[in-house]
Parts: sequence; C-alpha cells; structure tokens
Amino acid sequence: MAKILACDFGGTKLTAGIIDLGGNQWLGKERICTQRGLPGEGELRLMFALAERVLAGRKPAAIGISFGGPVDYDRQLVRRSDHVPGWEGVPLVDIFAERFSAPALMDNDANVAALGEYVYGAGRGCRTLLYVTVSTGVGGGWIMNGEVWRGARSMAGEIGHIVVDPAGPRCLCGKNGCVERFASGPYMAQDAVEELKKHPEAGEILQRTICEYGAGGEAVSRAAADGDSLAQEILLRGARALGLGLGNAANLIDPERIVLGGGVTGSGASWWEMVRQTAQATMLADLQVSIVPAGLADEAPLWGAVVMAQQLMDRKHS
Amino acid sequence: MAKILACDFGGTKLTAGIIDLGGNQWLGKERICTQRGLPGEGELRLMFALAERVLAGRKPAAIGISFGGPVDYDRQLVRRSDHVPGWEGVPLVDIFAERFSAPALMDNDANVAALGEYVYGAGRGCRTLLYVTVSTGVGGGWIMNGEVWRGARSMAGEIGHIVVDPAGPRCLCGKNGCVERFASGPYMAQDAVEELKKHPEAGEILQRTICEYGAGGEAVSRAAADGDSLAQEILLRGARALGLGLGNAANLIDPERIVLGGGVTGSGASWWEMVRQTAQATMLADLQVSIVPAGLADEAPLWGAVVMAQQLMDRKHS
Repeated sequence: MAKILACDFGGTKLTAGIIDLGGNQWLGKERICTQRGLPGEGELRLMFALAERVLAGRKPAAIGISFGGPVDYDRQLVRRSDHVPGWEGVPLVDIFAERFSAPALMDNDANVAALGEYVYGAGRGCRTLLYVTVSTGVGGGWIMNGEVWRGARSMAGEIGHIVVDPAGPRCLCGKNGCVERFASGPYMAQDAVEELKKHPEAGEILQRTICEYGAGGEAVSRAAADGDSLAQEILLRGARALGLGLGNAANLIDPERIVLGGGVTGSGASWWEMVRQTAQATMLADLQVSIVPAGLADEAPLWGAVVMAQQLMDRKHS
Repeated sequence: MAKILACDFGGTKLTAGIIDLGGNQWLGKERICTQRGLPGEGELRLMFALAERVLAGRKPAAIGISFGGPVDYDRQLVRRSDHVPGWEGVPLVDIFAERFSAPALMDNDANVAALGEYVYGAGRGCRTLLYVTVSTGVGGGWIMNGEVWRGARSMAGEIGHIVVDPAGPRCLCGKNGCVERFASGPYMAQDAVEELKKHPEAGEILQRTICEYGAGGEAVSRAAADGDSLAQEILLRGARALGLGLGNAANLIDPERIVLGGGVTGSGASWWEMVRQTAQATMLADLQVSIVPAGLADEAPLWGAVVMAQQLMDRKHS
C-alpha cells in the first residue's frame, strides 16, 4: 500500500504524519513545539527528523505540505513566514522531493486546512465553503466548486485583514479596524492589558487569568467564561468584528457554509452567538449561510496535506 | 448567418439588440425609457415590441437576457425586481423561448455586465475580475477563471451591501454603513439634501444643480465638479466607502482586475483618485489590483447577453 507523508509547519509547532493512500487513520504522527527564535533552517531540520521518525524506514509515494505563511502556489515557493525568519523564497517542495525521492505539493495553512475540513471535516457534503481560523492570527481559505480558490497571486482568503471599522484601532498591517485587530487572541489580550492599565480596579478575574495563562487569547476567553465583564466585552467585540467580516464575505461570494476553527472558537456559547448573530444580520436576507465549528481541530492542515498528496497521486495516474 | 437577440431589462430602461453570431456590431438596437409604476407585465410587452422591431422578421437562433434584479440562475426564474412590481417568480426565459421559438438564458444585470466587460470591454486579457456598477444602486459580478461566479444561491457579488462602517447611516436593506448607502447616486443626493436643510447657507452650487438635474447622483457630481465643497465632501465620502469595499473584496478573492461602470464613475478625477487610493490602502501589500473604468458604458449588459446566447449555441453544438 502506497504511503503518504503529511507535514504541517505551524507558527509555533511542527507536525508530521504518515497514512495509507486512501486511509483515514494515521499510521504514525509526531508533533513538537518550536522555540521562538529558531530560524527557518532549524525548523526544516526538526521537520526532517519528525518525518524520518514517522516514516520509520518506509518510503512515501507523495508528500503534502502545509506552510504557516504566504506561499506562491504557482511557483511552489514560500513567500515568507510571519513568525520565523529565513523562509523567504525557500523552495520547500523541491527540498522535500529531493530528500524523500517523492513528489511534493505545498500551500499556505489556511488553504490546506480548508481542504482538510472540506474532505474530512465540517465541510463534508458541500461544494463551496469559507474556512476561517481564529487564533494567533485570523486567516481564511476558500473552497469553490470543490477546489481551493487561490486568486491571481495566491493571496485570496485574507479575511483577517478586511477592514470592518475604519475608525478602529491600528493593526500590524498598517490599516485600522481589521478583523484580526479585534478578533485574534493576541490582540484581544493586548486590548485587555491596556484596559486593565486604565482601570486597575476592573477585571479582577482577567488579571488572574493573565497571570496564569499569559497575555493571550486563552486568558481573555477564560476570564470571560468566569464572568469577568471586561473580558466579556473584549471577547464580544472580537466576535462582532469577525461576524461583520463573515457576513461581508458571504454577501460577496455566497458560500454554502462557513467553517470556523482555531483556539478562539473555544471561547464558549456567547462568543458563537455573537459571531452568528452579527454575520446573519450583515448578510442579505436571501443569504442564510450556516456557520459551523471545524471538525478536525488543529489537525485540519495535516489532513489537508494528505488531500494534496492524494491529488499528486491522482495526477500521476491520469 | 445565425442571429442573436440580446435583451436588457434595466431599472429605468429597456434595450433590445440583434447581432450576427460571432459578430461585433449591432445589426439593430432599440432603447426606451420606462415610466415609473409600469408593472412587470407592461415592461414585458414593451420589450417584446422592441425585440420584434430589431428582429424585423428575422428569427433569432438564441436569446440572452439581462435582468435588473435578483435572478435564480439555476431555475432560470426572476426572484424579484427592486424597482418594478409583478416580477416575482416570472419564468422569463420560458416566455421568451416560446415567443421566439429559440433557446434563452437569463442572469442578473451585474453578472451579465461582468461577462460583457470580460469578453468585449475593459476585462479583456484577464481571467478573474470583479465588475462593479455604481449607479442608482451598487452591484457587482465576478468572473473567476473565465466563468461567472454566482455562488450557492445565485447571490454572489453583492458588494453594495457589505458593511464598511458599522456606525454609518441606515441603508434600505436594514443595515448601517453599506457601500451602497454612501456611494450610490440617490443616497449621495439624499445626504446632500439633508446637509442643505441643516446648512441652508452652504452649497450654493449644489442647490442650483439639484434644481437643474433633480436630486440624484448627477447633481452631486456636477456640483462637486463646479467646486461646491459640500458636494465634494459627499462625493468623496462615497468614493472612500466604495474603495474600502473594493479593497476588502480584493483581500478576500485576489482578482486580477476590478472594472468600474455606472453613472457615478463619471464623477471625475478626484472621485477616481479617492476610490483607487482607499482601495490600495485597504489591500494587503502583496495585492496590487488595478482598478479601471468599464469599456462598454451602459451597453455592458447587452454585450453580456450576447455572450450568454453564444454559450447556448456552443452547448447545442457540443
């Protein structure tokens, strides 16, 4: 039975898995968290080590790669990583193909995760969907008529950087009021810390969760769940911005379904309610697009990488 | 030589044209303005009269129809007209096919105009574009990889009703701060009239152009061109909202080009500059999508209807 190697270069972790062609469970899977400051070359060496371990001497027939940053799909080059230096212009697929003597295909993690959810997850049974991950960033991938839609420059799906409030706060991208500026974990935490500075008497629970979990999205989610009103306000503001972005995207493209993944989607019922309510109110009345939780959690990119490798095999045999 | 009949049901006018299959100039073309209050059935009779006149006894081999309102493309039914009563659920293509004994195909005017611009106008030479008309409303149509993208419910392209300022004024659709609420001719005129009420001493030129041209987009454009600062402010606010919408659409889909048509696009260089500048600032740096004026003016839907009829002929012969 032909084997597929799936590799996921995430922002803070690397994962490799091996699976039979057409299979639906991993024969082997390994994950490690990467240290901050590790350059691209170091990540590559770590990923090779993971891959060798899951392969255990077996030879892959095809390799799918999910990369956590912009990818030039047509030329199969990494554009850059937004987290790790040294990835600019790296021909990752050529490097993998040579190392493992097998054809490889790469795409950015949002597109690959969309493909994973489409084939194995919460997108099954529909032909057109928007997948959005709400985590350290907010990214999106489109499946249109059963295929990944990448756009003219492999840049489609950037829902994190659509502007939903021109009077809103500044985002790292230079614009004001992007979806990501309101809805991503780190920005919610940043806003929480700012608010606590201004109102030291407020947000007692939030102060505790930030101590315990660090200044990230998880601290805000947990404080909100525990009844902290400041955290709830920040969380719902993010949910509202995301809902506006999703409603706008639905008006533009009319997908069958929207699938939401990423850590922030674990923030509870009131977060989901605000996202859905705002999105539905933003969509035209003829458009009632369902918004559902992802089915594969953080394994979506790895499963999408499997689909890409399968596509490579199909091409070879057709 | 086989003849094609092209019909355009616009909001305020009806047009019919006849052309040779594969031809690039009209053998005959007729247009009339419709009176307010004329029901759908009356428009249909008028269109039949126009069509008979341009056909002059010739029999069409295929018919393309552009309809100014939401269309259920899969079922080939009119959903409704936003201007004219009595169009709900009308099977316009069946009626035409029976009347002229020829196959017919219908789509909404924004999609059809996008197709016209793609094949005959400012979209030539690219495979993926967004066409936007800025007129009495703001509508859009997508060409993706050389085909009209309609979405799951034939509702894609509704850029007029994406929200770009949640704190903005109320739109007819019920939401606040839609692109159309700022950028369409009637809403700009409405805002102008409101401002003049509040500041009767301001907008001398604007008051004159409203008397002369009526309370529509043209009065605002002309007053702005003649140096009226109130009109300029309203016009540029509309341009800014449109630019935000276009930039957001580009971030989501990454088209090669954006084509702008409709009366408001004749508002001069400062309008275009504001649209382009805001759109580019809203797009991510890797995305520099060109924004160009439409090439077919108000004939874009008629040329698009020709393309649809040609597609019908191609299907028949394949």
